[in-house]
Amino acid sequence: MSTIHDTLRYLDNAATTPVRPEALQAMLHTYATVYGNPSSHHEVGEQAKTVLEDARARVARILNARPGDVVFTSGGTESNNLALKGIALGNPAARHVVTTPIEHDSVLESVDFLVRMHGYDATHLTVDAQGLVDPAEVAASIREDTAVVSIGLANNEVGTIQPIAEISAAIKTLNRPRTHPGKAWLHTDAVQAAGWLPLDFKALGADALTLAGHKVGAPRGIGLAVIRGRIALEPILHGGGQERNRRSGTEQVAGAVALAVALELAEAERMHSAAQTAAALEQFITEVHHRLPTAQLTGPEPGATRLPNLASFVFPGTSGEAVLLELARRGVIASSGSACAAGSDEPSHVLTNLGYDRELAQTSVRFTLPHQGANLSALPAALEAAVTTIEQTGR
Amino acid sequence: MSTIHDTLRYLDNAATTPVRPEALQAMLHTYATVYGNPSSHHEVGEQAKTVLEDARARVARILNARPGDVVFTSGGTESNNLALKGIALGNPAARHVVTTPIEHDSVLESVDFLVRMHGYDATHLTVDAQGLVDPAEVAASIREDTAVVSIGLANNEVGTIQPIAEISAAIKTLNRPRTHPGKAWLHTDAVQAAGWLPLDFKALGADALTLAGHKVGAPRGIGLAVIRGRIALEPILHGGGQERNRRSGTEQVAGAVALAVALELAEAERMHSAAQTAAALEQFITEVHHRLPTAQLTGPEPGATRLPNLASFVFPGTSGEAVLLELARRGVIASSGSACAAGSDEPSHVLTNLGYDRELAQTSVRFTLPHQGANLSALPAALEAAVTTIEQTGR
Repeated sequence: MSTIHDTLRYLDNAATTPVRPEALQAMLHTYATVYGNPSSHHEVGEQAKTVLEDARARVARILNARPGDVVFTSGGTESNNLALKGIALGNPAARHVVTTPIEHDSVLESVDFLVRMHGYDATHLTVDAQGLVDPAEVAASIREDTAVVSIGLANNEVGTIQPIAEISAAIKTLNRPRTHPGKAWLHTDAVQAAGWLPLDFKALGADALTLAGHKVGAPRGIGLAVIRGRIALEPILHGGGQERNRRSGTEQVAGAVALAVALELAEAERMHSAAQTAAALEQFITEVHHRLPTAQLTGPEPGATRLPNLASFVFPGTSGEAVLLELARRGVIASSGSACAAGSDEPSHVLTNLGYDRELAQTSVRFTLPHQGANLSALPAALEAAVTTIEQTGR
Repeated sequence: MSTIHDTLRYLDNAATTPVRPEALQAMLHTYATVYGNPSSHHEVGEQAKTVLEDARARVARILNARPGDVVFTSGGTESNNLALKGIALGNPAARHVVTTPIEHDSVLESVDFLVRMHGYDATHLTVDAQGLVDPAEVAASIREDTAVVSIGLANNEVGTIQPIAEISAAIKTLNRPRTHPGKAWLHTDAVQAAGWLPLDFKALGADALTLAGHKVGAPRGIGLAVIRGRIALEPILHGGGQERNRRSGTEQVAGAVALAVALELAEAERMHSAAQTAAALEQFITEVHHRLPTAQLTGPEPGATRLPNLASFVFPGTSGEAVLLELARRGVIASSGSACAAGSDEPSHVLTNLGYDRELAQTSVRFTLPHQGANLSALPAALEAAVTTIEQTGR
């Protein structure tokens, strides 16, 4: 059985991360001391409510957001569903949403739901060969009846960082009154950016921002959406009216505490070591190009528009799945792209929208480093051996 | 700070239960040994998938359901939203849903969403003074375009157990072809029944059944819906297509394991001690009637149609909130009804639908016993003192 100590060879941290011991400890302490339902009007419930609101304040502080705008959810997928469908359906005058073709499935499928079930129009913006969106094109796409513009802060497959603050500014130059029924709110999916990029809700200029706990070392099953309080929202989960009527369901107090702890640690590591990780990644990329001249890095070059922990390549003439198996034989766990799409015969929708043909897109291999840092010294040789084996055997 | 050792005086177990140490231990073991994303196609992911499917098989065994019909969710509210909206919206020919007026808010608000946003008709069946539904009335309510009939197995405020198997039989006598586009599927919310009543999916004759982990000693944030595979379902959460395209979002492996452990323990306790708890509850009810002759037990008399762990009374001339405060001063934590509605100035929709006037409904106090059993010997005297204090001081 694999154990948590194998994480040095686990380079699929964009799919999920092991739970941090400190987050687990905080959960255990919460389970041992707080068992009430925060909605209950007795001391056991009120104690749970206090702990929940403390966790909310802690994550709000990291995100430079108002605690009242933080909605705890079951994870990134629910958060994205809430931001997209919640904002769109909360505004009965809206008929249109804007996104990019390289978003996570939870965004794209929520858009598809609005089109299929509610007759919305959807604009899928173009992206350039690095996956970048043009803020001017975003502004031009907005209609009188646009409800929400959803653009991920950092792409999960190729690492492209979008200019969200510029996009926000471009939308704001449209200068429509705040009370306009069709005001286009800006949502950014920050699931992959958490712990790698500054997540300053106000500086980004977004109206909604979504996170998943398990990408920063909190457990699976907890996430959050920051959604400005003034936005009318139709909930995804209806019921008892928890989370200020934005998300019903008994609140996960221990999960919220674990998320606060994990996010604080990820943020501290970001400030301390994101630059070191970026340097290690850049050296790895250089070495791969040296050893495997036909390898192509997907997405932007290392720098301001690339996540510091993600490198994905296509290896012409190979199969990504075969390279991954050879890597696994050499003790390295990587992936072909999004875990949510793993096992699908379809090539990555991200890569095909960046202009890769279907065959080349199916040769992709993605490495995502952990927040805690990783020793990559043996990786280029392992990758060279894996790719060379596939090229030679033609598998 | 309250601790978990206070649970002997915590008689609000219908709101939530402390996490069982065994469930916590199983979670910890899972976090320590399994960190992969079950959708990832590498050994770390496949290991997680194996553990997840083992948990699914274990809960399916307890529920006498097919593992493939079990959908893990974030809890009871999401499960009820999925069963109601998912079945209704999955059937484009459907325009009608049937429920009772005494369901949990997550059912009633999901029905309201279908009416508000999708133009559905809703039939709210009548209930008698004990909260019971008449199977013949259920059958009579079904139309050609009925998508789903949702009736809770056991009521969370008054403990009424509905005749789900009889209702299922009554629906089946309508004998419409299985492929009929408007076939009415039967959903039962078993959140409050778990660990107290046999949950045999096949024997109940339901097509969908929902559970929340935190009512049986699993952590908050995990629940499940059993939904027959042949039912077309529109997901609530769209994205990567996990859970056989029925519920997207990275699977909570540790939560699923904890739910399996907790449900197994609750089921073992049910067989071992539900009868003892029922006897203790009946003795408590008798003693309350003796000490407080004006107290009225709500819901059915103890017996086959009442949950063995729930007793709720109205105390004419008092205020439920005031009685609760006096009880708390005497070390007893109870509630006025559903935690989801706590703090609302409105009287309980359950009690008003059972025929109680608004004023009397606001005098209700509910006691819900834990699965592990509780010593109730001091409770009648504490309740008498609390009620008498309120009657005398007029607060």
